[in-house]
Amino acid sequence: MIFIYLSGTPNSLAKGFEEKCGWKVLRPINKVFPDGEQYIRLPEAIAGNVAIIQSLYPEQDRKIVELYLAVEAVSGRGARTKFLILPYTAYTRQDKRFLEGEPVSTKAVYQNLRLFEIDTIVAVDVHSIQSLTSLGFKVHNILPHSHLLNAAGEKVDLVLAPDRGALPRAMEVAKTFNVPCDYIEKFRDRVTGEIRIDRKELNVSGMSVAIVDDIISTGGTIAKAAHALYNAGAKSVIAVVSHSLLSLESIDALSSSNISKLVTANTVSMPNNLPKWIQVVDVSSLICSEISKWVSY
Amino acid sequence: MIFIYLSGTPNSLAKGFEEKCGWKVLRPINKVFPDGEQYIRLPEAIAGNVAIIQSLYPEQDRKIVELYLAVEAVSGRGARTKFLILPYTAYTRQDKRFLEGEPVSTKAVYQNLRLFEIDTIVAVDVHSIQSLTSLGFKVHNILPHSHLLNAAGEKVDLVLAPDRGALPRAMEVAKTFNVPCDYIEKFRDRVTGEIRIDRKELNVSGMSVAIVDDIISTGGTIAKAAHALYNAGAKSVIAVVSHSLLSLESIDALSSSNISKLVTANTVSMPNNLPKWIQVVDVSSLICSEISKWVSY
Repeated sequence: MIFIYLSGTPNSLAKGFEEKCGWKVLRPINKVFPDGEQYIRLPEAIAGNVAIIQSLYPEQDRKIVELYLAVEAVSGRGARTKFLILPYTAYTRQDKRFLEGEPVSTKAVYQNLRLFEIDTIVAVDVHSIQSLTSLGFKVHNILPHSHLLNAAGEKVDLVLAPDRGALPRAMEVAKTFNVPCDYIEKFRDRVTGEIRIDRKELNVSGMSVAIVDDIISTGGTIAKAAHALYNAGAKSVIAVVSHSLLSLESIDALSSSNISKLVTANTVSMPNNLPKWIQVVDVSSLICSEISKWVSY
Repeated sequence: MIFIYLSGTPNSLAKGFEEKCGWKVLRPINKVFPDGEQYIRLPEAIAGNVAIIQSLYPEQDRKIVELYLAVEAVSGRGARTKFLILPYTAYTRQDKRFLEGEPVSTKAVYQNLRLFEIDTIVAVDVHSIQSLTSLGFKVHNILPHSHLLNAAGEKVDLVLAPDRGALPRAMEVAKTFNVPCDYIEKFRDRVTGEIRIDRKELNVSGMSVAIVDDIISTGGTIAKAAHALYNAGAKSVIAVVSHSLLSLESIDALSSSNISKLVTANTVSMPNNLPKWIQVVDVSSLICSEISKWVSY
């Protein structure tokens, strides 16, 4: 079994794979031509099972094209079975036509991989599994939240989903830690268009609350929820999030919300020198364990 | 017939299509999410024939993903026949495995479009037609050099290809203008690895020479050729190039080579305020004329 790391794989995740899972690792030669085109090469011969690991953030489009190039190069090497490990999958939120004239972005981007006989994707908390299975992929989706909360070592009284759609994620965590679970009902103000959270809906007085979500992008959703929870008397609020696409702006937004901690997986590369209240947890062992269920390597 | 312009289409080319060819034009809504993912939407209904126009430079990977999204959106609109106009095609130089373990980049990138029932590509001076036809595309390849040299209004005594591979391009121009044609033999110094041009091979004394090529990227090839030609006694050297991927560095390299003019097509977006010796020629009428041979619109 050979594991090929592409440039999007976070360093800490790659290190985790090597140290904790004992995987044989191959890093392709890659470079960028003066005009901006990417080049990749796998100089070593490859035999047997091959897994290609790429995280599709930041610079999603570059990471996607690099993935195509790698998959084509691996095909040319005649590798027997190939599967993908995508710790972060891009373009899965636009998984259907919400409005006429929109693309199904997931199809536009991932369909190409099917042409290279890729049939399995191992992903961490993918936004829409169905968008990938409908293209013919078998998807192993790993939810890391219990692992994250465990690593954080914080006792919580209530697990909250920031909206109804995120409830299954929260229920999983609540079950693991044997605490109650709920979700936040958001209301859109029909005049201003602003999203607000109704205080009377939140019965969190004196509680330590964990908000469980898949992605932080601007940080707005978590910040707004934390604000409402503190206003309703919560003792502390911790955010448990799979993918943190952290910019300076999102770190500021979260910081001003007074959450006591953000605990998040190392599925995407993150800035150095993060503030202390952000805890990044290695999830390589979770991924290894999932893969070892169905691959012998 | 509807023509959909994506963000890579140079403004002057889009204007040329509208003014000279009288095409009905549709520009999709597009935006970029805070995390960097692209979004596109075609709000108007579409019927009949649809052409999608995208130039795949600069930021090749972003332009490629935008193209995928547009093609998927057009498919969702149920358009009857679709073809692509690609004034500049990226990733066509790596059209085979030059070394083991390399990808066929052309296949990695363009194969996806075949899944959306795209069967025809109209391109300007694509580096490797065969790399696209082998994927099942019908390719209409437009060579703009005679049009460019004509627009430049310069009399030349000799047309030169900068290497043997570029000779067919030069022969086409030489035939149009009824002048002789040759190519420059390059030698690689076995010790230093440097490419040099043997002076004794060049019989250009007192001549006005046109160098005909497909792409300027660093400007190094043209600059080196011009230098050798002036050293061999050429009176003037003009560069006639399809695609100019102009950076400040390449403009400097060309400027110091003393070429009297660079005449080039508007197939890619170029910086504003170009120096006077660079002449950008609109090739929309060439593309229109090619398409009108086989499409009624």
